[in-house]
Amino acid sequence: MSSNREIENLIELMAKLPGLGPRSARRAVLHLIRKRALLLTPLADMMQTVAATARECLNCGNVGTSDICDICDSEKRATGELCVVEDVADLWAMERSGMFKGRYHVLGGTLSALDAVGPQELRIPRLIDRVASEHITEVILALNATVEGQTTAHYIADQLEGQVLLTSLAQGVPIGGELDYLDDGTISAALRARKAL
Amino acid sequence: MSSNREIENLIELMAKLPGLGPRSARRAVLHLIRKRALLLTPLADMMQTVAATARECLNCGNVGTSDICDICDSEKRATGELCVVEDVADLWAMERSGMFKGRYHVLGGTLSALDAVGPQELRIPRLIDRVASEHITEVILALNATVEGQTTAHYIADQLEGQVLLTSLAQGVPIGGELDYLDDGTISAALRARKAL
Repeated sequence: MSSNREIENLIELMAKLPGLGPRSARRAVLHLIRKRALLLTPLADMMQTVAATARECLNCGNVGTSDICDICDSEKRATGELCVVEDVADLWAMERSGMFKGRYHVLGGTLSALDAVGPQELRIPRLIDRVASEHITEVILALNATVEGQTTAHYIADQLEGQVLLTSLAQGVPIGGELDYLDDGTISAALRARKAL
Repeated sequence: MSSNREIENLIELMAKLPGLGPRSARRAVLHLIRKRALLLTPLADMMQTVAATARECLNCGNVGTSDICDICDSEKRATGELCVVEDVADLWAMERSGMFKGRYHVLGGTLSALDAVGPQELRIPRLIDRVASEHITEVILALNATVEGQTTAHYIADQLEGQVLLTSLAQGVPIGGELDYLDDGTISAALRARKAL
C-alpha cells in the first residue's frame, strides 16, 4: 500500500507485466519515481509513442511501427530464404544470433486441436501465398522443438512439399551444454544426428 | 534486437527497471504491444500522471502526489506515535501490515561515514523539529536490522533521549520461520528476548 491512489494504480498496472509480481512492481515504481527525469518521463513518452505506432507487419507478422516492417522493407535482406517462426520473440532471438540474412514469417502460434487453433488462425495461408509469389527458394522451419512446434512444422512441410527447399534447425547438444544436465530426448537427437569429425 | 528503433528504445528503458534484465524487458514489451489497449496505453497514461505529480511529502518524506501526503494529512492518524523508517519502501511495508495507526518519518537512507552521509543528508534535523513541535509521545525506530540501520537508530536515540519515549521493533524468529534456516544472530536475539509463556 502506498497510501496514494495514482501510485497504487501504477503499481497494479506494472504488476501485470510478465516477470514482475506485486513486490517487484512496487520496487520498480519507487525506482521510477526516484529517477523521474531520467527514467519515468522518457519511459512514459516512449510507451505513448509505441502505443500509438506499434503494429504487425502486413507481410510477415513482425512487430514494428509501419505497415511493412524494417526487415521486409530492407533491400539488403531480399534473398530467397524465408525463416518461419512461431512468435515475434523467436524472430528477435534469431536476429540476435546475427546469422540469418533472409526474411521471416511469423505464424503467431502453433496448431492446436485443443485450443481450436487451425491453419486459418495462424498466418499459414499467407505463408503459402508468399512462397508462391516471392521467389522463395528455401523455407527454414525454425519452430520450437516442442510437440506443438513440430506438429505445426510437419503440417507446413506437407503443404509446401515439392514447391521449395524445406529445412529445419539442427537439433543436438546446445553450445556450453553438459550431457549430465541434458534430457534424454536431446541426447538421443544428438546421437542420431552425429557427424563425422 | 527487434529491428525497430522505437521498440528497441522502449526495451532498453524497461531493462533499467530493478528486477528486469534485457531478456525479461523484451518479454514485457512484447506483452505490452500485444495488450496495447488493455495495458500499454493505460500504463503510459498512468506513468505520465505520476511523473507529473509525484513528490516527496514536505512533512515526512513519503512519496505522494501532494505537498503533504495522505497519511500526514489524515485526521484519523493524528496520534502522538511517530514511526521512523529508512525508506519509502519500508513505510509501505509497515502500512501493509495494517497494524500501525500513527504517522511516519522517512529518513531517506542511513548514516554512512564511507558514503559521507551525515545527519544533514538524511531527514534527521526535520525529525528533531517534528518531535519538538508535534506533541509526539513515542518515536518507534523501525530501521532495518542491519549494522547501518542500527547505527542510525543509536544516533537518533542519542539526539532524542529524555524528550520522548523511544522504542524499536522486536527482534526474533519471524512468523513461519524455521530455526534450522535462521542465522545465528537472529537465534541469539530471539533467545535474549525470550518471553515467559
